[in-house]
Amino acid sequence: MELKNDILLRTLRGEATERKPIWLMRQAGRILPEYRATRERAKNFIGLVTNPELAAEVTVQPVDILGVDAAIIFSDILVIPEAMGLPYQMIESKGPYFPQTIHTAEDVARMQVVEAEVSLKYVVDAIKITKQMLAGRVPLIGFAGAPWTIFSYMVEGSGSKTFSKAKAMLYQNPDLAYALLEKITLSTIDYLKAQIRAGADVVQLFDSWAGILSPEAYSTFATPFIQKICEAITEVPMIVFAKGAFFAMEDLGKLPCTALGLDWNMSPATVRAQVGKDKILQGNLDPCMLYAPDDVLVQGVKNMLHAFGDRHIVNLGHGLYPDIDANKVKLMIQTVLEN
Amino acid sequence: MELKNDILLRTLRGEATERKPIWLMRQAGRILPEYRATRERAKNFIGLVTNPELAAEVTVQPVDILGVDAAIIFSDILVIPEAMGLPYQMIESKGPYFPQTIHTAEDVARMQVVEAEVSLKYVVDAIKITKQMLAGRVPLIGFAGAPWTIFSYMVEGSGSKTFSKAKAMLYQNPDLAYALLEKITLSTIDYLKAQIRAGADVVQLFDSWAGILSPEAYSTFATPFIQKICEAITEVPMIVFAKGAFFAMEDLGKLPCTALGLDWNMSPATVRAQVGKDKILQGNLDPCMLYAPDDVLVQGVKNMLHAFGDRHIVNLGHGLYPDIDANKVKLMIQTVLEN
Repeated sequence: MELKNDILLRTLRGEATERKPIWLMRQAGRILPEYRATRERAKNFIGLVTNPELAAEVTVQPVDILGVDAAIIFSDILVIPEAMGLPYQMIESKGPYFPQTIHTAEDVARMQVVEAEVSLKYVVDAIKITKQMLAGRVPLIGFAGAPWTIFSYMVEGSGSKTFSKAKAMLYQNPDLAYALLEKITLSTIDYLKAQIRAGADVVQLFDSWAGILSPEAYSTFATPFIQKICEAITEVPMIVFAKGAFFAMEDLGKLPCTALGLDWNMSPATVRAQVGKDKILQGNLDPCMLYAPDDVLVQGVKNMLHAFGDRHIVNLGHGLYPDIDANKVKLMIQTVLEN
Repeated sequence: MELKNDILLRTLRGEATERKPIWLMRQAGRILPEYRATRERAKNFIGLVTNPELAAEVTVQPVDILGVDAAIIFSDILVIPEAMGLPYQMIESKGPYFPQTIHTAEDVARMQVVEAEVSLKYVVDAIKITKQMLAGRVPLIGFAGAPWTIFSYMVEGSGSKTFSKAKAMLYQNPDLAYALLEKITLSTIDYLKAQIRAGADVVQLFDSWAGILSPEAYSTFATPFIQKICEAITEVPMIVFAKGAFFAMEDLGKLPCTALGLDWNMSPATVRAQVGKDKILQGNLDPCMLYAPDDVLVQGVKNMLHAFGDRHIVNLGHGLYPDIDANKVKLMIQTVLEN
């Protein structure tokens, strides 16, 4: 189906556009009362993720309500560990928790390489339903976690300030770490390809915990697996967002992906100099700027637009926080549309 | 009193030394059974911080047990908010918690500028006792939190993944934020001067939450106050450790301080190029490297020594984690002593 609003795709193709495209990480989420109502019907977060109809419903909400230039499928990066054989729980106000974690070679051997059409059919179905609901209004972004981030949850078992268990395995048993990272990578490739077959027009890889690794560890245990995924996904444009990986941007600039995400610590000019002129850059307003008075917010958005120059997809430097006022998000979007 | 081991001070003066000095953030702490025994006697963490004899005892322990080249006074950066009028609790396995936080101009007006000789006499006394116990074996490092980090706890009330309340105040009410940061800065200067009069040979400023600010916010709300402190403290060398502030290293390099700390994300060569040849650099082994097998750890330490070159104080890129084996720390120290 031809897209009515294809400004994101044209930007990703490197074409000059009449304005910059905008979407927001966590645009489908708790800032919208409509999301909270749908989630109520799903009982809990995982119930929402695993219900294709409801997941599609919240995916489309920000297109209707906020007017973003893309939808991103409502899901969670932790569906991959679950499909590999490691179920998780989402504990309110604490985050994800894995009752079992990976310690030994036997644990790694037990993990399945995911066949997404089977074990993640609910995501595939959610994408198909979303595409019907969108009816070509805007493109749909699929996504997955990057292997290091997925690995870190599977070994650590939850979020952590230090991820010291996950990092310890890298230093103590790099071969075992590699074996698990390899299985995650193959699973992720299968998963992203299934999302694309179902209708995803773009995919994004989230390396949420990139920033806790040293440059050496990142180049050993993270970048090579992202590289494999980039090489395998040739069907649609890929965006790689490695939060906190300022030290790896030169390497990431050499990946065969279309775009790179920036967090709000990163300077657009510095990253542009590091990655060269071709990559499309995405980001990077500090989400806390959305707490600012209108005039400060508008100026902050304008400053960001100017700092990136062209080849830019407007986004935040991280996901929206639950207590951000949707009206501030609308003002941010309006500012982008008018500039 | 003349110091028997003054290699840290000679390095801070820029002198060529026979080897590099080493001390470790959180060297007095839970990795040592001796610390846990002393803490048992103090009942809890704050009891230990506020008891000069016991605080001195744990300060000296790593000098005896590990053989580090400096002691750092056992205390907490949050004694400053407490002395300003905002008491805190330390909740086991959760971290600090402030029952009251700062929201309004009245809240800021109520905060006292600290007279450390009065309200932080227990730290001053702990330093005096420690100096007697050390009897000139190694220098003693005093410390304080940098104003932005102290501010972030006073507004947020606890640790946080986002510190969105503290950051929101910067954008919503910069004048109020400035007023609080100013009071913290004056308090910190008074506190560091009291530590120096009591015998601190070096002081370190910890900007633990530097990394959650954007470059613009950091240069507006953090660096100017660190600058004021650096200008005021002329008696002894000062080390500034701004964790996560990779984006600000060029600015920090211009501060009138003697040394800069690096976290393990930062590349020594990059920072050296950013700050010029004069600053002494401190850091930056990934604490998780101390979970590695001996040969991997030794090689990691050697790589770090080589990466920094001269004008280097060996340390970690963050504090020791409680479950790190003291024997690994000893191996790290031995490797530095032999290289």
